[in-house]
Amino acid sequence: MMENRDPLSTAEVIAVGSELLGTTRIDTNSLYLAGRLGSLGITLRAKSVVGDDRRELAQALRAALDRVDLVVLSGGLGPTDDDVTRDAVADVLGVPMAEDPAIVERIRARFAKRGLRMPEVNRKQAMVPSGATVLLNPLGTAPGLMVEHGRKLLLLLPGPPRELKTLFESLAEGPLKERAGPHRLFRATLFVTGQSESQVEEIAQPLYSRRLHTEPAIETTILAAPGQIEIHLSTRADDAELATRLLADARAELAEALGPDVFSTDGRPMEQIVGELLAGRGWTIGVAESCTGGLLLSRLTDVPGSSAWVTGGVVAYSNAMKSLFADVPPELMQAHGAVSEPVAVALAEGIRARAGSQIGVGITGIAGPSGGTEAKPVGTVAIAAVGPEGPARVRTFWFLGGRTQVKFNATQAALDMVRRLLL
Amino acid sequence: MMENRDPLSTAEVIAVGSELLGTTRIDTNSLYLAGRLGSLGITLRAKSVVGDDRRELAQALRAALDRVDLVVLSGGLGPTDDDVTRDAVADVLGVPMAEDPAIVERIRARFAKRGLRMPEVNRKQAMVPSGATVLLNPLGTAPGLMVEHGRKLLLLLPGPPRELKTLFESLAEGPLKERAGPHRLFRATLFVTGQSESQVEEIAQPLYSRRLHTEPAIETTILAAPGQIEIHLSTRADDAELATRLLADARAELAEALGPDVFSTDGRPMEQIVGELLAGRGWTIGVAESCTGGLLLSRLTDVPGSSAWVTGGVVAYSNAMKSLFADVPPELMQAHGAVSEPVAVALAEGIRARAGSQIGVGITGIAGPSGGTEAKPVGTVAIAAVGPEGPARVRTFWFLGGRTQVKFNATQAALDMVRRLLL
Repeated sequence: MMENRDPLSTAEVIAVGSELLGTTRIDTNSLYLAGRLGSLGITLRAKSVVGDDRRELAQALRAALDRVDLVVLSGGLGPTDDDVTRDAVADVLGVPMAEDPAIVERIRARFAKRGLRMPEVNRKQAMVPSGATVLLNPLGTAPGLMVEHGRKLLLLLPGPPRELKTLFESLAEGPLKERAGPHRLFRATLFVTGQSESQVEEIAQPLYSRRLHTEPAIETTILAAPGQIEIHLSTRADDAELATRLLADARAELAEALGPDVFSTDGRPMEQIVGELLAGRGWTIGVAESCTGGLLLSRLTDVPGSSAWVTGGVVAYSNAMKSLFADVPPELMQAHGAVSEPVAVALAEGIRARAGSQIGVGITGIAGPSGGTEAKPVGTVAIAAVGPEGPARVRTFWFLGGRTQVKFNATQAALDMVRRLLL
Repeated sequence: MMENRDPLSTAEVIAVGSELLGTTRIDTNSLYLAGRLGSLGITLRAKSVVGDDRRELAQALRAALDRVDLVVLSGGLGPTDDDVTRDAVADVLGVPMAEDPAIVERIRARFAKRGLRMPEVNRKQAMVPSGATVLLNPLGTAPGLMVEHGRKLLLLLPGPPRELKTLFESLAEGPLKERAGPHRLFRATLFVTGQSESQVEEIAQPLYSRRLHTEPAIETTILAAPGQIEIHLSTRADDAELATRLLADARAELAEALGPDVFSTDGRPMEQIVGELLAGRGWTIGVAESCTGGLLLSRLTDVPGSSAWVTGGVVAYSNAMKSLFADVPPELMQAHGAVSEPVAVALAEGIRARAGSQIGVGITGIAGPSGGTEAKPVGTVAIAAVGPEGPARVRTFWFLGGRTQVKFNATQAALDMVRRLLL
């Protein structure tokens, strides 16, 4: 039968669940599915969220089957009355459902393992639309299902992300790969800091626009993320070696044009880049933070293995603590104000000496919403980085946005100063 | 004309943008819109994401207009070829578009203010489908639009969240409120810590199930969020006084049954609750963190005004730093290990003395992924909190999950210990 089928090339994801239509929960499974399907060369054309309503879900499913080759449904496979995905699929396909004894047995065994009797409601999870392939779920009671519908394919997966991912990778990805065409999606990224989105666009545009017409063509997306501008390159190709080489060329050309503001060419975040530069030299870092309140230390210690290159640091919110923890002379704060370049340098040098580290960082500023003045508005942050040699590097920034954005952007700028010092 | 209209009671949100179909960006505007529309008594029935494709967007819009009273489209109102929302709407309504001179003037003035000439492409943003009401955007060049279509209503909003929110609240919400029915959505929340989702469910279920059948009925959703279980109560009613009273009753009953594990009954996060308890006493807090690496201090300093009650703290990753910054005796670490209750207490007492604060907190543990032993596996964290009176409170936790989850859960447990100490 395989030879008669067109390859799967387009997909739509429908997340099922009324809880995903409120103000607190968001469907993130579709981000994962977009990536996995993309790697198979299957493009996500649209996605949607539908409540636990059999008629509305059937309607959405019919519309999706009109448009794309593959429809992935996530959620609505539980045992309660709210769980309508199986029924809606049977409605649309016009097929009966029957209980699958193997599924009943498996659910019963799952309960038995915890010393429990299977509640009767769980039998509902064993109902299978005629003709469907069952994907047994190692992590929960809800099995996945795969159903052919003419030239189209339906994939039903449980909603909990861990179950969805495990089931997709162990049982769905293989069959989908066989049905997908020879094209795969290949990706590359660059992260840039210290430039605005439009500055990056201005430099990158003439370069990437030429690559839109190569064979295979390379698509470029520029995104503004907190503290960084991201350039995402992708290409669909059947020749992996060629695609990888073209992407590497395009990435290298952009990195060359954008210069040292490019800090990552493989998705590693700034704190990891800095950590690896430190580890490479066998150096450690000490930090004295005021307005960022511990966020820089927290980001550094998010990196696994950071205990090798973070000795520690201090959060000195008050002037007294700046003197007490990082030996900032009170006269210096009187003369220049606590938010000033000399105080940032003193914090960096003070913590470097205290912590016995090779690198010292000092941050002092006004995160807001109050505390700003005309001369030093909210968002003013002085940052210093000092190493074993040469004078301290110090700079004053004026960040926009609310308190948490000012905090984050200040830590990103501080990390970038350390990165440049280590290069 | 108003008297002939049915009230708006159902809505659908369509987010437009190919970047929302990839692996990195997610539509969060719909969470905001679900909340604002819900407050007006308009229920979100479904939501979807469509790429920058005029034909596909028109198809999705037609389907949505068949199903609901109000369709909100976000994004696709920019000046480039990719921006197809206006065109798709004109296609579906079957009306011509015309340039609105007032919009052109406004965009021109925006550019002039920055000393720039308006690029010709921006004229596209002044094209308005015949019959639409223009919602001028104070924060960007893309105006919003509101269009009647028979008994249905279309609302077009720009994609950037800040612009969407500003435009919605200043220009769209008023007209929608006039068109909505007499029912409004009312909400209440409780945040619980220290209990699992199923423990909360077991206590809450008998209480909330009775309230499903009151008039108006109260719906209850229990959600597991990082470090806390959230109970969301909601009801649709036309009598605000009655709804508010019923919700307050239900909330009080649940709070009573769940006891002091309930830390917030109005959406305030844990760090703010602790900050306000400290501020109420005129006290300050000092923190000595090891495995949480600054995250506790960062969370405390996320609260605006926290400089009044956070003096500061230290991140002491190495044993040497624990002695240097918080006076932990090296013998104590040799005798019990750095991850131990006596060391947590010494950190708390040491930082309390150093910082001159009323409260001291000490955290020491193993965030992973490496560093665990059989006796002290990854996720083992000892936390101590000490006040001006009485012995230190200290407890050892075993947290599950990856490094960032262990870090977050440890800070939540530490904040909760401080909260209980202050109650």
